[in-house]
Amino acid sequence: MAAPGQNLAVVVHRAGDLRLENRPIPEPGPNEVLLRMHSVGICGSDVHYWQHGRIGSFVVRSPMVLGHEAAGTVLRVGPGVTHLKPGDRVAIEPGVPREMDEFCKSGRYNLSPSIFFCATPPDDGNLCHYYKHNASYCYKLPDNVTFEEGALIEPLSVGIHACRRAGVTLGSKVFVSGSGPIGLVTVLVAKMMGAATVVVTDLSAPRLQKAKEVGADITIQVTKESSQEVASRVEALLGCKPEITVECTGVEACIQAGIYATRSGGTLVLVGLGAELVTVPMVNAAAREVDIRGIFRYCNTWPMAIALLASKRIDVRPLVTHRFPLERALEAFETTRRGEGVKVMLKCDPTDQNP
Amino acid sequence: MAAPGQNLAVVVHRAGDLRLENRPIPEPGPNEVLLRMHSVGICGSDVHYWQHGRIGSFVVRSPMVLGHEAAGTVLRVGPGVTHLKPGDRVAIEPGVPREMDEFCKSGRYNLSPSIFFCATPPDDGNLCHYYKHNASYCYKLPDNVTFEEGALIEPLSVGIHACRRAGVTLGSKVFVSGSGPIGLVTVLVAKMMGAATVVVTDLSAPRLQKAKEVGADITIQVTKESSQEVASRVEALLGCKPEITVECTGVEACIQAGIYATRSGGTLVLVGLGAELVTVPMVNAAAREVDIRGIFRYCNTWPMAIALLASKRIDVRPLVTHRFPLERALEAFETTRRGEGVKVMLKCDPTDQNP
Amino acid sequence: MAAPGQNLAVVVHRAGDLRLENRPIPEPGPNEVLLRMHSVGICGSDVHYWQHGRIGSFVVRSPMVLGHEAAGTVLRVGPGVTHLKPGDRVAIEPGVPREMDEFCKSGRYNLSPSIFFCATPPDDGNLCHYYKHNASYCYKLPDNVTFEEGALIEPLSVGIHACRRAGVTLGSKVFVSGSGPIGLVTVLVAKMMGAATVVVTDLSAPRLQKAKEVGADITIQVTKESSQEVASRVEALLGCKPEITVECTGVEACIQAGIYATRSGGTLVLVGLGAELVTVPMVNAAAREVDIRGIFRYCNTWPMAIALLASKRIDVRPLVTHRFPLERALEAFETTRRGEGVKVMLKCDPTDQNP
Amino acid sequence: MAAPGQNLAVVVHRAGDLRLENRPIPEPGPNEVLLRMHSVGICGSDVHYWQHGRIGSFVVRSPMVLGHEAAGTVLRVGPGVTHLKPGDRVAIEPGVPREMDEFCKSGRYNLSPSIFFCATPPDDGNLCHYYKHNASYCYKLPDNVTFEEGALIEPLSVGIHACRRAGVTLGSKVFVSGSGPIGLVTVLVAKMMGAATVVVTDLSAPRLQKAKEVGADITIQVTKESSQEVASRVEALLGCKPEITVECTGVEACIQAGIYATRSGGTLVLVGLGAELVTVPMVNAAAREVDIRGIFRYCNTWPMAIALLASKRIDVRPLVTHRFPLERALEAFETTRRGEGVKVMLKCDPTDQNP
Repeated sequence: MAAPGQNLAVVVHRAGDLRLENRPIPEPGPNEVLLRMHSVGICGSDVHYWQHGRIGSFVVRSPMVLGHEAAGTVLRVGPGVTHLKPGDRVAIEPGVPREMDEFCKSGRYNLSPSIFFCATPPDDGNLCHYYKHNASYCYKLPDNVTFEEGALIEPLSVGIHACRRAGVTLGSKVFVSGSGPIGLVTVLVAKMMGAATVVVTDLSAPRLQKAKEVGADITIQVTKESSQEVASRVEALLGCKPEITVECTGVEACIQAGIYATRSGGTLVLVGLGAELVTVPMVNAAAREVDIRGIFRYCNTWPMAIALLASKRIDVRPLVTHRFPLERALEAFETTRRGEGVKVMLKCDPTDQNP
Repeated sequence: MAAPGQNLAVVVHRAGDLRLENRPIPEPGPNEVLLRMHSVGICGSDVHYWQHGRIGSFVVRSPMVLGHEAAGTVLRVGPGVTHLKPGDRVAIEPGVPREMDEFCKSGRYNLSPSIFFCATPPDDGNLCHYYKHNASYCYKLPDNVTFEEGALIEPLSVGIHACRRAGVTLGSKVFVSGSGPIGLVTVLVAKMMGAATVVVTDLSAPRLQKAKEVGADITIQVTKESSQEVASRVEALLGCKPEITVECTGVEACIQAGIYATRSGGTLVLVGLGAELVTVPMVNAAAREVDIRGIFRYCNTWPMAIALLASKRIDVRPLVTHRFPLERALEAFETTRRGEGVKVMLKCDPTDQNP
Repeated sequence: MAAPGQNLAVVVHRAGDLRLENRPIPEPGPNEVLLRMHSVGICGSDVHYWQHGRIGSFVVRSPMVLGHEAAGTVLRVGPGVTHLKPGDRVAIEPGVPREMDEFCKSGRYNLSPSIFFCATPPDDGNLCHYYKHNASYCYKLPDNVTFEEGALIEPLSVGIHACRRAGVTLGSKVFVSGSGPIGLVTVLVAKMMGAATVVVTDLSAPRLQKAKEVGADITIQVTKESSQEVASRVEALLGCKPEITVECTGVEACIQAGIYATRSGGTLVLVGLGAELVTVPMVNAAAREVDIRGIFRYCNTWPMAIALLASKRIDVRPLVTHRFPLERALEAFETTRRGEGVKVMLKCDPTDQNP
Repeated sequence: MAAPGQNLAVVVHRAGDLRLENRPIPEPGPNEVLLRMHSVGICGSDVHYWQHGRIGSFVVRSPMVLGHEAAGTVLRVGPGVTHLKPGDRVAIEPGVPREMDEFCKSGRYNLSPSIFFCATPPDDGNLCHYYKHNASYCYKLPDNVTFEEGALIEPLSVGIHACRRAGVTLGSKVFVSGSGPIGLVTVLVAKMMGAATVVVTDLSAPRLQKAKEVGADITIQVTKESSQEVASRVEALLGCKPEITVECTGVEACIQAGIYATRSGGTLVLVGLGAELVTVPMVNAAAREVDIRGIFRYCNTWPMAIALLASKRIDVRPLVTHRFPLERALEAFETTRRGEGVKVMLKCDPTDQNP
């Protein structure tokens, strides 16, 4: 553990400048809890801030702690906190609205423009030893859910929000474009929501193999097919067009394939984001009433994810392929940058490196 | 098999008068198919027509063939039929709208007042050797789905329609009141839709045991608790109030328990129907925005049920506890009347008595 | 105006004991605003607390300021308030969630069990000269919307929430049972949402006359008809069953009539609440998929109501039939108790008694 | 009137070849009615088939009667028709599903690929004296609704379907891009559904003047602003971003403006269709959860439109700017081609040329 009063943290200073350094231990406010962090996953966005110092209009202007896929243990609670107590194990929802605006009041708090969000500049994340967070966005983990499962609720939430906005239901045929971490959680969630058949495409055979492992029924390795050819292969293998497509790559040709592939009256959900401007066959989508819906992070997913994990009906553990102690964070980031495995987990508690 | 040109059928003539008798083999119309029946389940309503000659305002006034949970093989197709051909194995949706009224146009054809429905007076059912049906309501079964699974789509559809109107989704906590055949399919479907925890109540320990077998997480044997006590036990065992209650008994005290038990903002679906007038704690439901929704049969369920059965992710086979050849139908009805087992299946094809 | 530093308030001490007395002027907290009240309507619930000292489980145990239909002017703002400034004219939403629980996060904050609500024990209302409120629940009024229109957003919100949960849309046929203040705002809102025809029933001819004035197309004075007869008259006059019924009386026979009257697949919304237990024809509702939905207050209605009032497309002014200065509040309550007129408005600003 | 047994019809033979010629009077089938046509509006698509001989993949390969915005009188009914009788005045829904496929069963029959649709090759329209149609898609007009209002239900339905898919509701701020006939009906419908403020953009001042006349609150004449500038002007004049944009031009820059203009969490409905491929700021839409939804014709709109017209709360009559007898159809088409006025109506009944 760090020396008394010290708080080791993974901090990006600017593009290419990632450091392990000590920060003060924060004081929880009235409605906050102080947490000892246990497990924090590395997300592609963490690596992107390290490599590029920005994502779109979010720019690292002063040093920022990374990390937002996290679980830990309550050390102290602010005076207004009633539903948590020291010793509780919790998963952390990284987005906390700062004001009760129209989006919050209507249940879509993820769209609130002034929201706090871990590791989105200028808000610090939780890849550190001690971290404070709004208690209402810390969710108690049942005994049968591990810290790592708790940390994985964050990527899982992207899949939940995508499948929910897609309207996945009993018997759905679902096309998932892209077999990276988000594609994989989408497969997991779609099957849990009752999807009958999930077909996944990717360029990489090993990634498709992983999709098979988490439940994909059909995988298609694409090479240089046109968008329409990909759509045709999906239809041929499914025996019909899918009602739902979840696009996880952000690549223009894949978005096009998603439109061509989706059944009339169905929904294309865009999860992966790429170039600001893309060219798409809009008449094809519009005249067949194929809705195009994006997602921005997620909302209202932690309670259902915890219920699901506690029921033991979903297994997210195969997603974790690497583990490093926090002290070796730079090595862990390097591993993620190289695209090895699926999910790299940092273990922040020197006294407990278990999942 | 019956003598050439003969069509053995199970016919109710009036209350208490059930006969096996020969009927003519029907001629399929332009949009119809003639089927050789294979497997037909006996439903509680079939027994009720036999015992009482009526259900509510539906009265047996002339002899009526029973049976509406059915699957068979296409023998001949009418001239307007293009999506089926002789030899196709199909499941039969028993309700066929007779006119394109407002309910049909808006996707709720089950509410069309002039709908044809197998074995609802005066419409004949399909517990016989040869039966004709509107081809649009016969759904081709994949090779890996048996006739009996096809026949079980009918009770499964009640569970699907109930869970869909209830809004069961990922992580739902669901309370199913009653562990008869419909309660059991509701458990099966709720779990398939992603419910995290399903709690089932019943008076009978063996029926609760069956609920466990099909996936119930928690069972509660009720004896003489008050409605509020039942609701409290459900909440205590779940750790919270369920968002959704599906009431399958029709008993007044159970409907009351369903209201008390359901979380604010949740939904109580009434599947079981009992006395015309019931006394309920309406203020409790209304002031907590617990919606009360009934179901009338089902609509748009066969395609998703077939997709689900083909995916092998749901196992309805444990529901079939007895099988009889059509020729021993009276014995089969007697077995059902005594409440033995869960589902009694009649085998209509003498040359193939497999599931 | 009251003497400097004094804050005249209408306070109920216990059943039958209503007093005008001075209270301290409150200090706004960080996210609060201090308001000079302008117009506050008297609601049936205010009179009920005065007459009975309780509504259901809400009991007046210590003196409580009444009033929750209110508008006023910002005098001072707490340090965290950015969207309001002194001099802003605002309408007050009386319910303010105290914690970010599951109901708040999902956009149904009205169901939050710990919510603060003006003039519901033990929370004080705003029938006084000076009142502080959470700034996020104070909505700025455009110049062309009067204070009284602002105060009327509260009862209007009940109509909005009822019509929204009912699914009123273009061309709807709507049956409103009861022509009191809530019935009237329901008529107003239903027409604004595009309802083609609204039929209203009541015992009182003058109340039905008021319904006509605010837009009802058809009125029916009921006397001693049975529930089924009322339903038949509604259908006969409309030319069809209404898709939607909004029940505003809470009377058992009216709830029954609401079920019988509503078209298959439609919705009965319960706004009026009466006896805890009521006997209803549940099979009739359930087997025709007539949904029964209550409402508890409202949520997310102030912004749309203000947009509507600013557009000058709705006229709520005829609802105000009496006005009294705050100093004559006891007389105003007596008028309301006698059931005179529709809405009695108290004018809290001695320097401006305009609407 | 035409000579006995003759049926004058407006027939397109190929691009540029439009003729008035006699056709046989059709015989109604069992579920059909024979109609004497009264009023038929000319649609942009009719002109397009005349000018270009095709729309997308729909090609005029053999002579086709034009016309699909129509109302007439029942002359004879087929033997299976019960809800209509000779003399009934009806509005005609031009799309009639040919088979009960998944789209029809689920209430989205407009998406059925095999649907019959008036004046879409190879299906004949109703710009003629005598026309037969499926009786279930002929809707009886009340006495207080004129034939022309009945014919205008077709374009009105596009606005209804667009506003319904957009989710227009009480207090909505709506941006309508384009002030042609469809833009105008969208304005009308949006206001009827409770929209508080509707802003309309167009290149043409006279068209914007028409928008004002039918209810637009704000109009913006665009010239050479960029997409983002148009979006900014809409926001500035509305005082906020609109929750809903209905794009009626199909122009790429307008679709882009629609995305930029729409509030986070809102909906952009595409009605106008232009180039097959368009370049759009997809990340902007997706990351703000602005849904993009097209419409294909409409479904389930005639009953609500008739209820609305009968209620006299909507006035579509200003849309008709020109009238011609059927015999002068070529002149009428020429007028439409030149873009004069809003809606040109052909009067098919020589004995009654009233609206």
